[in-house]
Amino acid sequence: MNKLILGLPKGSLQESTFAMMRKAGYTISAGSRSYVPRIDDKEIEARLIRAQEISRYVESGMLDLGLTGHDWIVENGSDVVEVGELIYAKQGLRPVRWVLAVPEDSIVQSVQDLQGKRIATEAVGISRQYLERNGVDAEVEFSWGATEVKAPELVDAIIEITETGSSLRANNLRIVETVLESTTRVIAHKKSWEDVWKRSKIEKIVLLLHGALAAETRVLLKMNVQEQDVGAVTRILPSLHAPTLNKLSDSGWYSIESVVKEKIVREIIPELKSAGAQGIIELSLNKVVS
Amino acid sequence: MNKLILGLPKGSLQESTFAMMRKAGYTISAGSRSYVPRIDDKEIEARLIRAQEISRYVESGMLDLGLTGHDWIVENGSDVVEVGELIYAKQGLRPVRWVLAVPEDSIVQSVQDLQGKRIATEAVGISRQYLERNGVDAEVEFSWGATEVKAPELVDAIIEITETGSSLRANNLRIVETVLESTTRVIAHKKSWEDVWKRSKIEKIVLLLHGALAAETRVLLKMNVQEQDVGAVTRILPSLHAPTLNKLSDSGWYSIESVVKEKIVREIIPELKSAGAQGIIELSLNKVVS
Amino acid sequence: MNKLILGLPKGSLQESTFAMMRKAGYTISAGSRSYVPRIDDKEIEARLIRAQEISRYVESGMLDLGLTGHDWIVENGSDVVEVGELIYAKQGLRPVRWVLAVPEDSIVQSVQDLQGKRIATEAVGISRQYLERNGVDAEVEFSWGATEVKAPELVDAIIEITETGSSLRANNLRIVETVLESTTRVIAHKKSWEDVWKRSKIEKIVLLLHGALAAETRVLLKMNVQEQDVGAVTRILPSLHAPTLNKLSDSGWYSIESVVKEKIVREIIPELKSAGAQGIIELSLNKVVS
Amino acid sequence: MNKLILGLPKGSLQESTFAMMRKAGYTISAGSRSYVPRIDDKEIEARLIRAQEISRYVESGMLDLGLTGHDWIVENGSDVVEVGELIYAKQGLRPVRWVLAVPEDSIVQSVQDLQGKRIATEAVGISRQYLERNGVDAEVEFSWGATEVKAPELVDAIIEITETGSSLRANNLRIVETVLESTTRVIAHKKSWEDVWKRSKIEKIVLLLHGALAAETRVLLKMNVQEQDVGAVTRILPSLHAPTLNKLSDSGWYSIESVVKEKIVREIIPELKSAGAQGIIELSLNKVVS
Amino acid sequence: MNKLILGLPKGSLQESTFAMMRKAGYTISAGSRSYVPRIDDKEIEARLIRAQEISRYVESGMLDLGLTGHDWIVENGSDVVEVGELIYAKQGLRPVRWVLAVPEDSIVQSVQDLQGKRIATEAVGISRQYLERNGVDAEVEFSWGATEVKAPELVDAIIEITETGSSLRANNLRIVETVLESTTRVIAHKKSWEDVWKRSKIEKIVLLLHGALAAETRVLLKMNVQEQDVGAVTRILPSLHAPTLNKLSDSGWYSIESVVKEKIVREIIPELKSAGAQGIIELSLNKVVS
Amino acid sequence: MNKLILGLPKGSLQESTFAMMRKAGYTISAGSRSYVPRIDDKEIEARLIRAQEISRYVESGMLDLGLTGHDWIVENGSDVVEVGELIYAKQGLRPVRWVLAVPEDSIVQSVQDLQGKRIATEAVGISRQYLERNGVDAEVEFSWGATEVKAPELVDAIIEITETGSSLRANNLRIVETVLESTTRVIAHKKSWEDVWKRSKIEKIVLLLHGALAAETRVLLKMNVQEQDVGAVTRILPSLHAPTLNKLSDSGWYSIESVVKEKIVREIIPELKSAGAQGIIELSLNKVVS
Repeated sequence: MNKLILGLPKGSLQESTFAMMRKAGYTISAGSRSYVPRIDDKEIEARLIRAQEISRYVESGMLDLGLTGHDWIVENGSDVVEVGELIYAKQGLRPVRWVLAVPEDSIVQSVQDLQGKRIATEAVGISRQYLERNGVDAEVEFSWGATEVKAPELVDAIIEITETGSSLRANNLRIVETVLESTTRVIAHKKSWEDVWKRSKIEKIVLLLHGALAAETRVLLKMNVQEQDVGAVTRILPSLHAPTLNKLSDSGWYSIESVVKEKIVREIIPELKSAGAQGIIELSLNKVVS
Repeated sequence: MNKLILGLPKGSLQESTFAMMRKAGYTISAGSRSYVPRIDDKEIEARLIRAQEISRYVESGMLDLGLTGHDWIVENGSDVVEVGELIYAKQGLRPVRWVLAVPEDSIVQSVQDLQGKRIATEAVGISRQYLERNGVDAEVEFSWGATEVKAPELVDAIIEITETGSSLRANNLRIVETVLESTTRVIAHKKSWEDVWKRSKIEKIVLLLHGALAAETRVLLKMNVQEQDVGAVTRILPSLHAPTLNKLSDSGWYSIESVVKEKIVREIIPELKSAGAQGIIELSLNKVVS
Repeated sequence: MNKLILGLPKGSLQESTFAMMRKAGYTISAGSRSYVPRIDDKEIEARLIRAQEISRYVESGMLDLGLTGHDWIVENGSDVVEVGELIYAKQGLRPVRWVLAVPEDSIVQSVQDLQGKRIATEAVGISRQYLERNGVDAEVEFSWGATEVKAPELVDAIIEITETGSSLRANNLRIVETVLESTTRVIAHKKSWEDVWKRSKIEKIVLLLHGALAAETRVLLKMNVQEQDVGAVTRILPSLHAPTLNKLSDSGWYSIESVVKEKIVREIIPELKSAGAQGIIELSLNKVVS
Repeated sequence: MNKLILGLPKGSLQESTFAMMRKAGYTISAGSRSYVPRIDDKEIEARLIRAQEISRYVESGMLDLGLTGHDWIVENGSDVVEVGELIYAKQGLRPVRWVLAVPEDSIVQSVQDLQGKRIATEAVGISRQYLERNGVDAEVEFSWGATEVKAPELVDAIIEITETGSSLRANNLRIVETVLESTTRVIAHKKSWEDVWKRSKIEKIVLLLHGALAAETRVLLKMNVQEQDVGAVTRILPSLHAPTLNKLSDSGWYSIESVVKEKIVREIIPELKSAGAQGIIELSLNKVVS
Repeated sequence: MNKLILGLPKGSLQESTFAMMRKAGYTISAGSRSYVPRIDDKEIEARLIRAQEISRYVESGMLDLGLTGHDWIVENGSDVVEVGELIYAKQGLRPVRWVLAVPEDSIVQSVQDLQGKRIATEAVGISRQYLERNGVDAEVEFSWGATEVKAPELVDAIIEITETGSSLRANNLRIVETVLESTTRVIAHKKSWEDVWKRSKIEKIVLLLHGALAAETRVLLKMNVQEQDVGAVTRILPSLHAPTLNKLSDSGWYSIESVVKEKIVREIIPELKSAGAQGIIELSLNKVVS
Repeated sequence: MNKLILGLPKGSLQESTFAMMRKAGYTISAGSRSYVPRIDDKEIEARLIRAQEISRYVESGMLDLGLTGHDWIVENGSDVVEVGELIYAKQGLRPVRWVLAVPEDSIVQSVQDLQGKRIATEAVGISRQYLERNGVDAEVEFSWGATEVKAPELVDAIIEITETGSSLRANNLRIVETVLESTTRVIAHKKSWEDVWKRSKIEKIVLLLHGALAAETRVLLKMNVQEQDVGAVTRILPSLHAPTLNKLSDSGWYSIESVVKEKIVREIIPELKSAGAQGIIELSLNKVVS
């Protein structure tokens, strides 16, 4: 039987990744120390592996497919096929940034000022590539964590991941530059991607993941409109997603439906109402596949 | 740039208020000791302030808009514009009552019997207005909390907030009268309400809040009906919200949709089925703007 | 006024049962040590009773209606009317199995090998009936819990409930046979079932429970299709639930809706897309009454 | 090698029993679902078994020694050697009472009034013996728990365990009589008690348990006293435990030490001070073996 | 029977006060919403009342004795007898400070600069007395909590309680002056203090509380010393508490014991060892009554 | 002013290290993300740093003194002065082992069988030194954690830390050999150790830490003995710690005190009693400095 070995990130990203897989339609669960999660698709075998290591095992073929951050693919310099990007509006899969940060009162104003300095980071590979690109010669030391407390006493600067910058601010650090922006990627082993069955299976998984992610940020708006207002109302609804127009049996009324981004709803509902829409309702969506 | 300063209640009402703001379409969050929550609308600056104090700062204009209980507006005697009432079916925003309560075996049977007695309460203003309205002269002392344990040992009666009455019963207290019923109100500073941009912004916020609240207690019912049963089925659906009738391409069948109060669903589903409705489904709603 | 006394299982099944009642449309809640839960239907009085005892009190008429496991009805040998079965996809109401289990290295290979042995179980009645059916004479002792640790030191075999078998494996036990499979049942007192008002009330409750349970495993799929693809697309949708077809005002397009099992969605979405479906969206359902 | 099999109660008494074993000098621990706890004495093998069942397995010799409640020994009618009683001042090992309780407004005033009634209990054996002793014929049904909610709707009376009576009061039940008082007992299998090595081992364990329990309620008081006050001070100290008197090198002063019950300390410290004691200090004790 | 009514602070101070009462020798406990805690002294009836209100009820005689902060006695201006001060090294009963704080960049440098300003505080009485003492006329408004976030937007300054100042710093506030330092006090109703039995009972309670508090910060040091080193060793031990010297039966050796402050132990142990002390041991104390 | 910079391990060892410092006499605390803990000794500045990195910063002189595992000193190959070893009986500071582990059914029986294999570990340095010592050439890859799940699918063997071996067993791994045993060490920077003030300060800290650790596993036994039994009783008490013998004023009785290891108490108490000791009491100790 055909099988696809799928690597999922263990640890801080695990719950958000599992949640996304569930939205995509897979029942998946794992014990707290588990390596082999249960998944209800006989064609998939899942593995829980640290995000830092997934690309390494996709490259060597121990995994056919993996979900991991772009940053760790770069850190490991892994030679893999990137088959999708997963951008998520909520905690977990949203873009993260690796930044160069220094103490508030440091004289460092740009990467050029790091010449001869000492830098602590959990991403030694990314940091060395970055310094090299910028022609800077500095000492990079591996940090086992809590990197943000090390400057200025132990090192001159750090290269660290940040989402909101609040941990950096709390340690009186100033961001100098962004080193790398990273989102979650779906990556495949080269030979798995060339296999007909595996590529088809991978494409289905990616289609469902994208459908689930798209639904996270979209809602269905439904409303009733009299014939003379149809034009005005549809002009307000974003043109990319053509609204569905349906003449009701009650003569003279139309039902309009449209999938729209949730964040514009608060802007357009007052406008739709002014333009004549009645009985406007908003519904949540599980998947959107266009 | 135009800005609206919005006061939200800190403390026990904070989570339910935030939840309602999120349903209305705003992404809002706050640290545990925060005064300035983050909100994703550049035209709004939010502030977290005790529900007891919001009306005071709306009156003085430090806030343009505030969400707070009717009770605290009365307690403070604040001169503000009330622009909306938010009644919510669930914990947090539902009406609360301030009641006069006495020990089970007290001789007090009405407010008149309080003449010369001692009353503990967190709402000294409300209590004094109430006694005055009833022509009763009694001593009112401010209680810092745990008011329900004070009678009969420390005071003769209390005036206290209650939702289910269970805390009063647990302390062997008997409710004599309701002093004040209170719901959450949206209140505006007088000059802000006269400002064209601010009033328009306020009205949009209130429209979305009402839309989110309405959806809390309503669902969408959808069903298929043959032509001859359309009349019988639509007669069961409440008349206020005219159901949407749509002839299906399968000749002879109609699709009927109606937004109904969730609590009548369990009554009407058996009736709808008896009247010929088939494939009845019920869906949740995020917003209902009629 | 007519009243129906309804017994609900206290303890491990309580939360899943309450959740199902809520989905069916009842607001129900109970304190942590409560016997009389609050329910918002004046025609129902609910009681919280151990699942093991409910059938006993339905038989004697202290309860008109009860929700409990088939296993405990058998254990008690109760003479009641079974008016419905509730099978649930998720934790709590899914089928459970009572199994005969022995230590991995036991010589017992079938129930026949138990002759003269000692068996611990929480279900003495079920176990004795099972041994008798199989013509085996063995000693059955009542276990107060933690039965799975008793073999082989204290007993030769156990008859125990299991869902995933993981507790048995963790104790090095091997399943020999299934003794009884059990799902949640709705049972009525015989005379209550003959009472016209009570039977009608019971049937309404069962209809709503079934509607809520059906919705747990189903979703609404909606999509737009051009005229020439309607046949191909509808052939993919399962035939049992005929999809709703509706010609849109935009000439040449149809809207198709279908309630499908959630677990087939991940299979059919790629097929629907290939067959020409566009703007496919998936929505959750609260109830499905066909 | 000689081995003693020791049964300890699993469940609600487990933590207090383990704590007492630790105070006695044994390092003992168990996983949450464990049957075989780890203990640092190679001559002991411990087992975790429900308190209800321990006496049954001590009687049959599967356990040499067990710690369990007197109530369950009676319930099971087990023929075992009782070698010690463990009375503990704190939660867990203190005496418990099984009581006959009825609804506040029941006409039942004594056990005699139960003739022909229905009684729910978790201790069917104790209850039947009690009724028989009193010459009363009543129906006793096994309760799976939550017994206190069953009267008056499902039964007329209950026989239930109670410590403070608060759960009974909360359910509006009135205690009619005490059926049985029970403390924790150390029980031995008859043949184990006759074995020289096992009896000696058991006696050591009991000595240490008693030493640890005695220390729970006692403290060491130490003070300095001038020669002329020695008599007055020692008269205050309880006579059972003769205080240790020691002449200090500082001429004329004596040091007095005494192990006393903790609960009298607050009474005697003011008296000791008045009688001339100085520098009074109180120390905690791990063990007291007199 | 003689009875003493004792008020203990409900809320944040409750657990530390209960812990101190337990160290003093009283078994005391309370449910989470309780007003009447259980205490194992038949001569005492305890009441749980907000720290803010205790002095009010001691003044009026509803309580004979109370434990509360000096700050709230001042705030209420209560006329009571102060019979003891409880200073505690650990969280809960250690001194607290009410401070005047302003935004970091405020021009306010002393209380004099507050003329005509607006101040928020939970202690309106303390604040008004403080301003009056300093001849400053400013507006004081009652704050329901979260006072530290109010400056500078809502008020110019705050008067707020602080222990470490961290909450003030986190809100960018600067301490201008200390308004009041406060420790826990034992206060008595005037007439209760004149009653012979009550005063004697109160004095015993205070003696035990002081004994328990003293033991919190002290330990017993014990060591063996040869005759020639006795002088050197005793000179190191603090002179206030004369060490106990005892000639051992082993000729030439002395045992020395001394109660010392725990915080000097780390300084004197190396010195004692250098001076010839051997077998130095340190023991914890429950009570120290000198 | 003289200052000593002290590095303490952040993370899993932090709480046990803080607890030991507190027993030694230091009040120390830290916020959850803190780098600079508060300590009540003005001559010490503490820093929280990952155990893996402490030896690196002691070597370079950024820290004068550090507490960390022997394993990480070896891993980093740090050139530091080891001034003490801290062996602790309880969780946290007890010895840990790095072991070579392989799947249960692996053919690997000794380190020699690893030739050409792939090994995952968090301690790449220790592993490479170990392989080199044994003349084995194998691939060592850095593991970011969850190493125990990697064999056999991703690697052939792992080198991993273990305390009880339970995590290895749970993953079906077999221990082949111990690679390194490690305890907590106190290490000093070379130049700090040569500084007179710093060395003296370090020696005091180590004395107190050893005193606190010794007390963890010891207790004080005290008993009364008649003259004729003194010899028999003292022979039972371990000879290393000569017991203190003191003639009581009550003629003919002696008080004997001895500090003994806690784990022998349960053996010797029955013997002491048989030999004539009376009123045996056991007390806990905070420090033992011999």
